[in-house]
Amino acid sequence: MTGVVGSGVVGSGVPARSGDRITEVAGITVGHAGRLDDHVVVGTLTEPGSGWATGTTVVSVPDGATTAVDVRGGGPGTRETDLLDASNTVRGAHAIVLTGGSAYGLAAADGVMGALEKQGRGLFMDLLGHTVPIVPAAVVYDLPVGGWENRPDATFGADAYAAAAADFTIGTVGAGTGARAGALKGGVGTASVTLDDGPARGLTVGAVVVANPVGAVIDPATGLPWGVEDLAHFGLSTPDPAEIEAYAALNAKGTVLNTTIGVVATDAALPVASLKRLAMAGHDGLGRAIRPAHSPMDGDTLFAVATGATPADPDAAVPMPPGMDPDAPVVAALCEQSAIVVQRAVVSAVLAATGVADVPAYRDVVPSAVGG
Amino acid sequence: MTGVVGSGVVGSGVPARSGDRITEVAGITVGHAGRLDDHVVVGTLTEPGSGWATGTTVVSVPDGATTAVDVRGGGPGTRETDLLDASNTVRGAHAIVLTGGSAYGLAAADGVMGALEKQGRGLFMDLLGHTVPIVPAAVVYDLPVGGWENRPDATFGADAYAAAAADFTIGTVGAGTGARAGALKGGVGTASVTLDDGPARGLTVGAVVVANPVGAVIDPATGLPWGVEDLAHFGLSTPDPAEIEAYAALNAKGTVLNTTIGVVATDAALPVASLKRLAMAGHDGLGRAIRPAHSPMDGDTLFAVATGATPADPDAAVPMPPGMDPDAPVVAALCEQSAIVVQRAVVSAVLAATGVADVPAYRDVVPSAVGG
Repeated sequence: MTGVVGSGVVGSGVPARSGDRITEVAGITVGHAGRLDDHVVVGTLTEPGSGWATGTTVVSVPDGATTAVDVRGGGPGTRETDLLDASNTVRGAHAIVLTGGSAYGLAAADGVMGALEKQGRGLFMDLLGHTVPIVPAAVVYDLPVGGWENRPDATFGADAYAAAAADFTIGTVGAGTGARAGALKGGVGTASVTLDDGPARGLTVGAVVVANPVGAVIDPATGLPWGVEDLAHFGLSTPDPAEIEAYAALNAKGTVLNTTIGVVATDAALPVASLKRLAMAGHDGLGRAIRPAHSPMDGDTLFAVATGATPADPDAAVPMPPGMDPDAPVVAALCEQSAIVVQRAVVSAVLAATGVADVPAYRDVVPSAVGG
Repeated sequence: MTGVVGSGVVGSGVPARSGDRITEVAGITVGHAGRLDDHVVVGTLTEPGSGWATGTTVVSVPDGATTAVDVRGGGPGTRETDLLDASNTVRGAHAIVLTGGSAYGLAAADGVMGALEKQGRGLFMDLLGHTVPIVPAAVVYDLPVGGWENRPDATFGADAYAAAAADFTIGTVGAGTGARAGALKGGVGTASVTLDDGPARGLTVGAVVVANPVGAVIDPATGLPWGVEDLAHFGLSTPDPAEIEAYAALNAKGTVLNTTIGVVATDAALPVASLKRLAMAGHDGLGRAIRPAHSPMDGDTLFAVATGATPADPDAAVPMPPGMDPDAPVVAALCEQSAIVVQRAVVSAVLAATGVADVPAYRDVVPSAVGG
């Protein structure tokens, strides 16, 4: 494993697949900053860890997009989520921070705010160009992986924002650098779908997640990710029974880490109240891919962003009775896909992750499933 | 006006009155850090301001206290509020940050977290003493008072936490340094009540607020604060009619600033769900003292803290029917007082405030009311 310090791609990330990533939603970009040392020690309840294995992932949101959030874990660490309520005045974020470092990592948002301000991005507060950027954030608890004091600060946020691009990496990168998924290495994952029929045809839904749950992501009975419903989509094979047994033994150990966070994005035009349903539906993807999900110790939080770049196809519209939201059929179709892309993003995180210290990746424990 | 740079008391704060301040709740302490220059210029939509006039106020919360929050403004800027939901796992904060600097000021919480960690305070995450302090925060929008770039950072938070004590000052201090209340100078205010009868007898409720609302705090018809129901309590007299007219003319100008934030504290023992009702009731105090309150441009946010130091008097208990919360009569009595102390705290902020630049204090515009 290569230790890389500073901004940009770190660790052993792999490129997100074109056509199956959140940046298929035009205008959305993703950047990472992280630090992964060669000789990381994972701490325990009684022994300190050492070295760096943490980072920050920033999703840059185009101006004019709406933003919503749904917090469903029992131990969230968040920033600037209240203003995203549909009854409130601000309609959208300028960037969203997903970060390691537990609550300390919320400092990464300071750096993203500073970088946005330098670019003149944010809410304009006067005619002189002064802005207040809106930068919601959520954290994962990764502090035992590496030294306790080694956690993202404002510089990580600024560097991750500077690195944001349509081409980005997944796996052991950014906020996923120190992530665990149950007994295995967690990380950053992504997925997307563009609908070719139904009331939302022509619209795209994508997700990026940082998978670091208390719960398990692999079914001990099959040795395959819970979230996989189509082996071919992920290039997976039925695992060797001996590897399934090895995973089951490892899984019994559990983990002390927690929380899965992410962003769902669409190019549809949605008001905040409707958009929140995409964040809510995305949590069903966590429910399918992680068992248990949303535990009292997880801070599971999903943001949703609608860029509004692509109008709904009027020829695909489904009439609604008076007194009901005429866009409900479009929202329903997008919500169904939101759950699917979040589910797949968790799987992609687990498949792309590479081991850190004594935390093995799925590919290390069940190599036969990934053609190893 | 004296310009004081750095931590501790700044500007022209006056001591909070013993017996009528949030720190009458044992264990609650309040500290300020701020910076107020001699020659502050207030910015407008087309002209930049200059100099420093902002700061941070920290309420330190004793270990074991519960914490809740109710966000009712349309433009909040907050941090670590989601975890305070009653269904979540963390029960209480270690400190609460009230700060100027708009969303940029959320960085002050980074400094409070660092100071708490150095003291070994926070949630214990292992047996080695590593902690994650819980530091919720809310901001007011004061950036046009002084230079746009002059806003609280982590150092302000650390300094305010270090200054926290039972004796503290109100007025143009801490997060109230650059605050405005409608057309007048706003600031920090406080009040408390100890009940001598009813189901909550022997219990204390106190509040500290940072009054910076869009709305007015003075009734243009009487020249007296909306929130005053007892002139003697505040040492006020009926104002001179000419001063009432002068205020009314000033009030018509309005302001571009916004948001009132604060903390309600009690020594009762309350679970988070019941405690939230104290934060909710506190907003009625804002409704009475500020007109309009809770506008779409305000980020009005109240936290509530229950230290649990004083058990409810069993001899004062009011029986409740089966299926209802047996503590509801105590909660109801505390909620009534929560609204009253928040209302009075807003008035005390306005009366204690001293003018900054061309923003006059109430005492400057209506001196006859305060014996001037």
